[in-house]
Amino acid sequence: MGTTQLESVPEPKYWHLRTVLSEALDSEFEVGEILPNERDLAARFGVARATLRQALEQLELEGRLQRRRGVGTTVAPPRVGVAVGTREHAWPGTGDDAWQPADCVLAAPPAAVADALETDRDEPVHTVRRSRVSHGQPVAAELLYVPASSVPDLTAIDAPAGPARARAVLRELQRGDLERQESAVELGSAGAEDAKELDRLPGAPVLVVTTRYLAEGRTAALSVATYRADTCRLTFGDSGDVEIHHGPETRAS
Amino acid sequence: MGTTQLESVPEPKYWHLRTVLSEALDSEFEVGEILPNERDLAARFGVARATLRQALEQLELEGRLQRRRGVGTTVAPPRVGVAVGTREHAWPGTGDDAWQPADCVLAAPPAAVADALETDRDEPVHTVRRSRVSHGQPVAAELLYVPASSVPDLTAIDAPAGPARARAVLRELQRGDLERQESAVELGSAGAEDAKELDRLPGAPVLVVTTRYLAEGRTAALSVATYRADTCRLTFGDSGDVEIHHGPETRAS
Repeated sequence: MGTTQLESVPEPKYWHLRTVLSEALDSEFEVGEILPNERDLAARFGVARATLRQALEQLELEGRLQRRRGVGTTVAPPRVGVAVGTREHAWPGTGDDAWQPADCVLAAPPAAVADALETDRDEPVHTVRRSRVSHGQPVAAELLYVPASSVPDLTAIDAPAGPARARAVLRELQRGDLERQESAVELGSAGAEDAKELDRLPGAPVLVVTTRYLAEGRTAALSVATYRADTCRLTFGDSGDVEIHHGPETRAS
Repeated sequence: MGTTQLESVPEPKYWHLRTVLSEALDSEFEVGEILPNERDLAARFGVARATLRQALEQLELEGRLQRRRGVGTTVAPPRVGVAVGTREHAWPGTGDDAWQPADCVLAAPPAAVADALETDRDEPVHTVRRSRVSHGQPVAAELLYVPASSVPDLTAIDAPAGPARARAVLRELQRGDLERQESAVELGSAGAEDAKELDRLPGAPVLVVTTRYLAEGRTAALSVATYRADTCRLTFGDSGDVEIHHGPETRAS
């Protein structure tokens, strides 16, 4: 990367630097390549370290850079496309469902979840924790809330918790008649437990996908899944194809 | 809000403060209410101003707070659900399309867009700019890229640019046979032009929805739409309903 002096521009300095750096990443660097250290980069672009850090943080948010302890800052691979959404009109845990059940507990859910399920706020619901791995990396963590009324024939004989219990709850849930499902995507931040599972720090940006499974006119189950926002793009389409693909790089810039 | 001393906890201090503040917002504040000033808040929670600011930024990212110049920090209303996705198997600009065409220019697109459209990188394509408003607020800005080959009968007689030109391009595009559409959602940041249109600062987090419209086995048009991440949740479902609703508040926390 050559020496580049930034012109004086009205937009924030770090934002302009981000754009210049982004172009340099496209033209001069390979995926996985380690960037020069912060002092050298700041000197080359004629900016303060604080400005450089802001620009690097921005590019990390956009999934262009990865910062790893002991390695430094590397050029990130394109985000992984992870299929979500509506082509799979199916209960959780059926078909080519990409989720691994990890645990199941009976607990009172957050108030907003209880409201969505139309259960009393202190009524415990089955809470299945599942995780999703793509290309060997953890990409998402899910809490699936299932009220007792959705699994009326569930017996207490099985394991009281753990993956076996999670599978038993899913199996009973699948006996119901799924009418439709509705999803929403929004920006959130990883809580302590999700962060640990996703190998991120608490507060890291995540894409939160909330899915309501409707049966017999009411919400039979509610899934709150958090996807790593730095490495994932969520794909959905109107064909039956499930596509896990890379790029294209068409981010706003 | 009473005086609350933070216990010593292993998670980052600002993150713990964010959780405490979030609970206070739920229980003690109304939507639109103005928060006490930073000095008072920092004193009440026994934290440094810098820690408080980090927590407030986090809650702003999560859409819980709004910071407006001259007003202060207010409790944000629930995010607005904005329907995207696949129930509308239709060309842009048809049916109950929520977008307003603003402009159209003929220009070489970003390299990644040219690659997705399979056009030469220096080949100009029709670039339609549209905006989407919900509840009187700008929620999204879109660039729709249409190669000349997708609108073969477009005449040069109409206005060379502007909304009239945009409508002419959309009208010609709609003559084609739409086979299917594929979308992806990912986290991005607002560029200068999008930021202005969305009433945000450059670098503000946005949800970027990329949609490929496929006809005759190739990408006939490519849409890159940026939605305000602070105020929007994107909804999609497998029914024909278009729902613009509020909540539920089921964010990760």
